[in-house]
Amino acid sequence: MRLPTTEYSIALPDWIDDALAGVPAVIDDVEGRMRLVHTLAQRNWREGNGGPFAALVAESDSGRIVSVGVNVVLASGVSSAHAEVTALALAQRVVGDWDLGGEGRADHELVVNWRPCVQCYGAVLWSGVRRLVVAGSGPELEQLTGFDEGPMREDWAAQFQARGIAVLDGVLRDGALETFAAYRDAVATDGITVYNARRG
Amino acid sequence: MRLPTTEYSIALPDWIDDALAGVPAVIDDVEGRMRLVHTLAQRNWREGNGGPFAALVAESDSGRIVSVGVNVVLASGVSSAHAEVTALALAQRVVGDWDLGGEGRADHELVVNWRPCVQCYGAVLWSGVRRLVVAGSGPELEQLTGFDEGPMREDWAAQFQARGIAVLDGVLRDGALETFAAYRDAVATDGITVYNARRG
Repeated sequence: MRLPTTEYSIALPDWIDDALAGVPAVIDDVEGRMRLVHTLAQRNWREGNGGPFAALVAESDSGRIVSVGVNVVLASGVSSAHAEVTALALAQRVVGDWDLGGEGRADHELVVNWRPCVQCYGAVLWSGVRRLVVAGSGPELEQLTGFDEGPMREDWAAQFQARGIAVLDGVLRDGALETFAAYRDAVATDGITVYNARRG
Repeated sequence: MRLPTTEYSIALPDWIDDALAGVPAVIDDVEGRMRLVHTLAQRNWREGNGGPFAALVAESDSGRIVSVGVNVVLASGVSSAHAEVTALALAQRVVGDWDLGGEGRADHELVVNWRPCVQCYGAVLWSGVRRLVVAGSGPELEQLTGFDEGPMREDWAAQFQARGIAVLDGVLRDGALETFAAYRDAVATDGITVYNARRG
């Protein structure tokens, strides 16, 4: 057997350069980091790359932005290419290690515009980040967007903490809800594809 | 801000070509598919690419092998590059769609040498495969290898089924346990890195 494909790549969309022009390389408050995430998430689905989700990895203390990610499922044709997976992988490439929490390294955090789906929940667990920052974590994402986030455990946050990952919830929550509501309205009027698991 | 990295790629190791030489492109029984997975998993950790895990995507009815994947966390420097994520992404590239279960498409299955970790559990959910085939699903993996598989829900299999993904468990179970035991022995004697989440 010869395999048709032995390698795949995931790229950020071209408009990211434009979106980051004028954005400082260091954002020293967590609200500022979330504001950037909201901006990228709002633009992402309008550009047709994937869902209304964005993330970034930053050094928690310095505020240096290490990577950003957006959901590129539609653009890449790869169902795992969610914003969190993309941002974490790019950060690991920048740092040169699969473990962002390795010895002697600054603490890294993932900032994302809602609680990750079950896949990205696991991706965060194995990434080495020391903190997860989310705008919210309730059922609003699924209610507004129609996305299935998968079966999560009730103790998801405690399970993070047991592995040395702090959770900061509720940072610029309204901004996330605005993004999801705008996406919902576009799905209703323009027939945008909500790619996801199938039912039964 | 200019990002240092906007793209990453995940490649199968060079030895995969060698390992697949002489393997037919169609394997029409599920045990045969699992046997190939066991062979790749056994070789993967010995080659130093990552953990003792392998996977493949096949068309369930025809037995055509669409892709294979191994855990390349160490080789790629990307913590999400587990065998399942790699095999699913490569299959999606071959098929040309993020949804392996799209209309008019043959049913696809993921064959893997144990129940996926929580990240890959989610990756399977969003992939479009119609069946998950595993050698086993109990605590033996974690007990033997020391890997943390993350917080899974008790109803994980029912949650798959509710989304149209059948689960076939117990296919060549002993082969998986042999792989994990060999890996455990090597960790004990040779100090192989068990990369994973950290504790508290």
